[in-house]
Amino acid sequence: MDLWFTEYHSNYARFSIKVDKPVISLESEFQRIDVFDSYEFGRVLVLDGCLMLTEKDEFIYHEMITHIPMAVNPEIQDVLVIGAGDGGVVRELTKYDSVKRIDMVEIDKLVVDICREYLPQTSCRLDDSRVNIYFEDGLKFVRRKNNEYDLIIVDSTDPFGPGEDLFTREFYGNCYKALKQWGIMVNQHESPYYPNDALSMQRAHKRIKSIFPVAEVYQAHIPTYPSGHWLFGFASKGFHPVADLKENWNSLGLKTRYYNTELHRGCFALPNYVKELLENA
Amino acid sequence: MDLWFTEYHSNYARFSIKVDKPVISLESEFQRIDVFDSYEFGRVLVLDGCLMLTEKDEFIYHEMITHIPMAVNPEIQDVLVIGAGDGGVVRELTKYDSVKRIDMVEIDKLVVDICREYLPQTSCRLDDSRVNIYFEDGLKFVRRKNNEYDLIIVDSTDPFGPGEDLFTREFYGNCYKALKQWGIMVNQHESPYYPNDALSMQRAHKRIKSIFPVAEVYQAHIPTYPSGHWLFGFASKGFHPVADLKENWNSLGLKTRYYNTELHRGCFALPNYVKELLENA
Repeated sequence: MDLWFTEYHSNYARFSIKVDKPVISLESEFQRIDVFDSYEFGRVLVLDGCLMLTEKDEFIYHEMITHIPMAVNPEIQDVLVIGAGDGGVVRELTKYDSVKRIDMVEIDKLVVDICREYLPQTSCRLDDSRVNIYFEDGLKFVRRKNNEYDLIIVDSTDPFGPGEDLFTREFYGNCYKALKQWGIMVNQHESPYYPNDALSMQRAHKRIKSIFPVAEVYQAHIPTYPSGHWLFGFASKGFHPVADLKENWNSLGLKTRYYNTELHRGCFALPNYVKELLENA
Repeated sequence: MDLWFTEYHSNYARFSIKVDKPVISLESEFQRIDVFDSYEFGRVLVLDGCLMLTEKDEFIYHEMITHIPMAVNPEIQDVLVIGAGDGGVVRELTKYDSVKRIDMVEIDKLVVDICREYLPQTSCRLDDSRVNIYFEDGLKFVRRKNNEYDLIIVDSTDPFGPGEDLFTREFYGNCYKALKQWGIMVNQHESPYYPNDALSMQRAHKRIKSIFPVAEVYQAHIPTYPSGHWLFGFASKGFHPVADLKENWNSLGLKTRYYNTELHRGCFALPNYVKELLENA
């Protein structure tokens, strides 16, 4: 059977992956969830038709959304993770002995259940004793929190469907309030390349910048995401992501396949066209 | 008519672009040449089924292969460009008043003729008085040259078909010989992501490193190339691409949409998995 999964990256560009075999397809209360095995990328998770992760390159996304803030403030203890039902962010966070508490808020319990069963590569540390999982709306959860976290990681889906609320000004304002004095918020920030993604990116940046005194953007090569050029936002109440990088991160001896402290500095140097999009946001 | 151009990035992954209308398709002595108009990427050039450039993002490739060496040595006067029949590299080079001579060696005259007619965006400066075009084999051309160029830019196709010779140890050795005392060679260096490309990249790096005292690799986001994660090689007889970057490049006032000197420093910071591939080359 010649089976291909196809994702439209814009109306006029699409990316296709040859499927070895479908693993499971379900409809949750919130979205359609598909898992399949592929020849090139290993197991793949798809939500509402959008590729979320592949076993081949999920390490890039998860390392870049986690180690960038952790290397800026090694004293981070209390972390809130929003979304991230696959467990990849939690896996990276649990590498730090210094982290004392990880609250993970995922709206869709079925995503977590499926990842626990079919994606052990990412879900492997969800049972760590420091992890508390809440199955509820991230926006409502964070609304109740004040001065409680050192780091919030927003690992949302795209800004439509269940992830939509996680791109609003209200949400970012609540994150600010939920963070302690030296708090950092990192979020997946879409891509600058295709017009619709770029618009989402500009909107998110404008909103974050209106709330946080420090709001920078960094990039990574994620080949299975639209255009392969993916952005993350680094917002904080004071820490600068490059000036405050602690080189002693290297003495922790953590094993990473994408992240390193040189790349940490490098990934904040953006192409002119991306800088212009952000300045005109 | 629902017409799509599809390129296989590996046996198990493919990228497709919706075609507005085909422009021209020809068979030269060396390869098949196709030009079409697309909705998302403007006009597109395809050689032997491989996407070479799109009007939307060719600036990324051409700026990164040209301005990186030019910003390291602003005294570059004599430049050899191998391949590059579309004229994009020449367009970037002619922005520098300091460049006195550009020898361009393209094996396939038909590529140049077609780009002159159908891709003015890249071919627009091929008639600059400093440009000499030679329609011959790049390997044979460079074999005859000694101590003649400050910079060689190898803008080859992939290492099979007409571009194959431009990835050999003999070719790199001849480039070394053709360069003056402070010479720099930059080449398109394939991608680290899909196994076949990664193998080509490793082979090229190993060969270049065996000949040039300085051999570094840098990266760029080129969304329409396989994986979007593209590499370039910077080899030289002495200049280091980051330590010797001249910040006064900015005083030239050149307009670029991707390149800037911060990004210049940043693009040499490679992910761990790419560094490992290069170290084990």
